[in-house]
Amino acid sequence: MANSEYEYVKREFEFDRRLPASNWIVVRIDGCHFHRFSKIHAFEKPNDENALRLMNACATSMLEKFPDIVFAYGVSDEYSFVFREETEFYQRRESKILSICVSYFTSVYGMKWKDFFPNKDLREPPYFDGRVVCYPNMKTIHDYLAWRQVDCHINNHYNTCFWMLVKSGKTEKEAQQTLKGTFSEDKNELLSQQFQVNYEDEPAMFRKGSSVYRDKVKTDDYGNPIKRIRLAITVSNLDIIGPEFWGKHQYILQEASSV
Amino acid sequence: MANSEYEYVKREFEFDRRLPASNWIVVRIDGCHFHRFSKIHAFEKPNDENALRLMNACATSMLEKFPDIVFAYGVSDEYSFVFREETEFYQRRESKILSICVSYFTSVYGMKWKDFFPNKDLREPPYFDGRVVCYPNMKTIHDYLAWRQVDCHINNHYNTCFWMLVKSGKTEKEAQQTLKGTFSEDKNELLSQQFQVNYEDEPAMFRKGSSVYRDKVKTDDYGNPIKRIRLAITVSNLDIIGPEFWGKHQYILQEASSV
Amino acid sequence: MANSEYEYVKREFEFDRRLPASNWIVVRIDGCHFHRFSKIHAFEKPNDENALRLMNACATSMLEKFPDIVFAYGVSDEYSFVFREETEFYQRRESKILSICVSYFTSVYGMKWKDFFPNKDLREPPYFDGRVVCYPNMKTIHDYLAWRQVDCHINNHYNTCFWMLVKSGKTEKEAQQTLKGTFSEDKNELLSQQFQVNYEDEPAMFRKGSSVYRDKVKTDDYGNPIKRIRLAITVSNLDIIGPEFWGKHQYILQEASSV
Amino acid sequence: MANSEYEYVKREFEFDRRLPASNWIVVRIDGCHFHRFSKIHAFEKPNDENALRLMNACATSMLEKFPDIVFAYGVSDEYSFVFREETEFYQRRESKILSICVSYFTSVYGMKWKDFFPNKDLREPPYFDGRVVCYPNMKTIHDYLAWRQVDCHINNHYNTCFWMLVKSGKTEKEAQQTLKGTFSEDKNELLSQQFQVNYEDEPAMFRKGSSVYRDKVKTDDYGNPIKRIRLAITVSNLDIIGPEFWGKHQYILQEASSV
Repeated sequence: MANSEYEYVKREFEFDRRLPASNWIVVRIDGCHFHRFSKIHAFEKPNDENALRLMNACATSMLEKFPDIVFAYGVSDEYSFVFREETEFYQRRESKILSICVSYFTSVYGMKWKDFFPNKDLREPPYFDGRVVCYPNMKTIHDYLAWRQVDCHINNHYNTCFWMLVKSGKTEKEAQQTLKGTFSEDKNELLSQQFQVNYEDEPAMFRKGSSVYRDKVKTDDYGNPIKRIRLAITVSNLDIIGPEFWGKHQYILQEASSV
Repeated sequence: MANSEYEYVKREFEFDRRLPASNWIVVRIDGCHFHRFSKIHAFEKPNDENALRLMNACATSMLEKFPDIVFAYGVSDEYSFVFREETEFYQRRESKILSICVSYFTSVYGMKWKDFFPNKDLREPPYFDGRVVCYPNMKTIHDYLAWRQVDCHINNHYNTCFWMLVKSGKTEKEAQQTLKGTFSEDKNELLSQQFQVNYEDEPAMFRKGSSVYRDKVKTDDYGNPIKRIRLAITVSNLDIIGPEFWGKHQYILQEASSV
Repeated sequence: MANSEYEYVKREFEFDRRLPASNWIVVRIDGCHFHRFSKIHAFEKPNDENALRLMNACATSMLEKFPDIVFAYGVSDEYSFVFREETEFYQRRESKILSICVSYFTSVYGMKWKDFFPNKDLREPPYFDGRVVCYPNMKTIHDYLAWRQVDCHINNHYNTCFWMLVKSGKTEKEAQQTLKGTFSEDKNELLSQQFQVNYEDEPAMFRKGSSVYRDKVKTDDYGNPIKRIRLAITVSNLDIIGPEFWGKHQYILQEASSV
Repeated sequence: MANSEYEYVKREFEFDRRLPASNWIVVRIDGCHFHRFSKIHAFEKPNDENALRLMNACATSMLEKFPDIVFAYGVSDEYSFVFREETEFYQRRESKILSICVSYFTSVYGMKWKDFFPNKDLREPPYFDGRVVCYPNMKTIHDYLAWRQVDCHINNHYNTCFWMLVKSGKTEKEAQQTLKGTFSEDKNELLSQQFQVNYEDEPAMFRKGSSVYRDKVKTDDYGNPIKRIRLAITVSNLDIIGPEFWGKHQYILQEASSV
C-alpha cells in the first residue's frame, strides 16, 4: 500500500515559512488565562515571588537547551527569547521555532512546579501562547527589550498601588477609581504618603523584570574564584533600557550579531 | 513614563497572520526527539500501550477544552487536530492556534504522565513541535486523515517485523537488511512463517491508530442506557480511509462544515 | 568569477509563496489615480463607453493569453480574473501570478488605446495595482462576483444621479448634498421625476458591468451557423448575482472545479 | 441594496501583507518570454543598445515617479529597484508595491517604445514579472546589487563569445559546445585570439549593466555650471561591486538608511 495517492495533501497544502536571514528572532510566550490560573493556585498579589522564580527557572532551562538563545527577558507570566541574528535553528522555519519554544517552556514549567510550590498540586494545566517576531538590527532589538521593560514598570507601578489599596480595605472598583488618570508621580506620592512605601525599595525582580543571559564570571558553580573567565547562565533584575547594562555586556548581542 | 517611544516595535514588526475562512484547520503535533525520550523512559517496542493511551488521553483533553476541534487522529508520538471549517478560535490567528494547541497538549501530557506510568518518573521534559495546515473542502480533509492512517500502517507493519526480528536475536542492522525492499505481502509472510503471527491479529490501536471524536451514544457515563442521544468524546481504532466510518459518522464533519 | 559569494542573498531572503491548492485564485486589478487619468484624457462622466470597451478588450486578451482564466468581471477601472480551481499557472506562485497579470493587462491597455481613442494621444502612462485572493469553494467565488456587481450597481446608481445633477447646473458639492442619505428608491424617483430617466433603461454595461467568459456558440466568427458547438470568448452585461446566469452557464465554473 | 451580505468575501479572505520596517525593499522585474519578444522585434545579439536604453529610460521614469526609490540596477531585460529603508510607500503593503512597480514600468515601456524604435511597431505586448525582497541592512543590500552585477558579467561574457562564434559561422549547438566548461580566462583568450577582441573594450553598458540614481551635480539640465549642488537622476555603467562607487556616492544609501 503506497501512500502516494494521498501525499498531495502535504505537497500542495503544507508550506514551510522560513524567517529572513540577518534578523534577530524573538519568541514571546505569554500565559493563557493566567488570571484564573493564579487565582486557582492562590498566587500572591500583585507579585508571587515563587511563581516568578519558576518562570525564571524555565527561562534558564531554555538557554541551557537551546544555545542560540542569547538573551531572555521576563515579566509576570510573559517571557521573550532572543535568538542570535544568524541562527539556523530548524532552518529558521517559523512553525518549528514557535512550537518547540512554547512546548519546551510549558513542559519545564510543569516539571519544575513542585520545586517552587512543594505544597501545592497543579490543579489545572498551565499553558502559554506565543508569537515570533523578526528584528533587523541592534537598535530595534534593544528597543524591543526596552518596550517590554517599560511595560513591566507601568504595570507593576499600577498593580503595586492597586493591591495596596485593596489590602487596605478598598473594593477593587474603588481602587481602580482612585488610580484612574494618575501619573507616575501621583502613584509614588500615594505609596509614600498613604502606605509609607518607597516604590524604589520594592524588590527589583518586581520592578525591573528578569533578564537571563550567559554572564562572564570568574567563579565556579559554588562561587569559588577560578582563573579563567567562563560563561554562566545568570538571572539578573537590572535596567536594560539605559546604556549601562549593554555597555557592560556588549558581548551578549555583539557576539550574536553578524555585522 | 509613556511607552509610546518604543511601541513602534510592535506596530511595525508584529503581524498577525489570519487563516482564510471556509477552510478546515489542522494542527498536527509531533514528539521532538521521541526516539531518545522513549529510550530513556524504556517504552515497549515497537508500541508502548501506555504511551499511546497517554497520547489518547491528551487528545481527549484537547476536545474537552476546545469545542471547535471536531476530530483528532493520532499515531505513535503524533496527533492531528481538525478544527471545524468556520471556527473563529482566536480569530483564526495562526500563531495563537498553533502555540496554544501545542502548549496545552504538552502540559496535559506532563500532568497525566503519572496516571499511565505510576512507577516511572519523568526524567526529561517531553516536548512537541507543531504545524498548521488549511484544507479547503471535505475531500481534502478526508484525504489528509487517510494519508496519516496509511502512514500509520506502513510504519507499524515495518516496525512489527523489525522488532520481531530483533527480539528473535538479529542485530538492528541485520533486521533492516532483511526488510529492505520487501512488499506488504512479504512482510505478512515473514510474520506468519517465521513468527506464527497474523498481522491482522495485532491490536487495532497499533495497526489503525486512534481517532477521537464526539460520538452519539445512548448510555450515560457508566454505560447505563438513557433515553436521549448525547454526544460523548470517544476514542476508537477504526479504519478511516474507506467510506464505512464516515458513512456511519457523517454528522462529525457535516455539522462542522459550512457548505 | 563565480557568483557563489553573493548568492546567499537569493537563498536566504527570497521566498516563493505558493497559493494553496483547490482554491479559486482571483486577481483583481484596479486603475491607479484613474480619477486624474480620466480627467486628463477627458473621459465622459459618469461612464465613458470607449474607456469601458477598452477595459473589456484588455480582459478579452487576458482570456486569450491565459487559458486558465475561466471568468472575468469588470466595472469602471477595475477587473477581476478568476483562475480555475486547480490551475498550475506558475506553480501557483503568488508574486508571479500577480505581476504577470497586472503587467500583461497594462501592456495591452497601452497597445489598444489607439483602437478606442483614435483621436487622443496617451498623455500619461496608465497603470494599475492588483491583489491576489483565494476562494476555497463555489459558494465563495459566486459571492465574490456578486460582491463586485452589487458594488457596481451602488456606485453607478449614485454616479448617474450625481452627474445628472451636475450637468443640470448644480455644483459638485450641491449634488453631493442632494444625494446624501438617499436610498435606492429615492434615487430612482429623482431620476424619473427630475430627469425623466428610467434607471433600468440606462445601458446594461453601465448598470451591470461586463463579464468575459468562453461561451458555447453555434456560429463561426462571422455569425454564420455551424454544426458543432464551439467555445468563443464573449463579453456580456448580464446579472451574475441571481441563479439564472450561472444556471445557463454551469459549465464555466463546474468544468474549472476539481470537486 | 446594501452590500453587507457579500462583504465577508473581503473581510475573511483578503489579507494585506505588510513588509517589516527597517528593511530595504527591492522590487526586481524581469521580462517575460523576452527571448521570443527580442526575436520578433529583431533585437541585436547579444545586446541591443536601443533595447537597453529603453529599459534605462523606463527606470529613470520610475525614479522620477516614485521618490522613495533611491537606486536602480538593470541588465538585459531585468531591473531592480531599491526603496529606502523606512519607506512608507503604500504602507509597505507587498501587493501594492509589487503590482504598481511592474505596471508602471510596463506602461512606460510601451509608451517610450517609439522613441527608441521609431521604425518598428510593437507586434506583441511586452510584459514583465516581478518579485519583492526585503534586505535588513547595508551589507545585504550591497551584496544584492553585487550579485546582480556578477550575474551580468557572467552572462555577458558568455553571450559575447557565443554570438561571436555564431556570427563567425558556427551553429548555436557548436558554439555552445565550444564554450562548455570554459573559465573566464579561456573566454578572454578565445575572444582575443580568434576575434581580436579585448573584452574590456566592449561597451561598459554591456559589461557592467546600468545604475540609475540621483547624482549630486553642479550643472543645469543643459550641462552649464551652476552654483548650488543639485540632485539629478543619472544613468551610469560603473562597477558597483567594489568599494569605489559606494565610497564616492555614500549619500545614496546612507541618506536612505534609518541607522
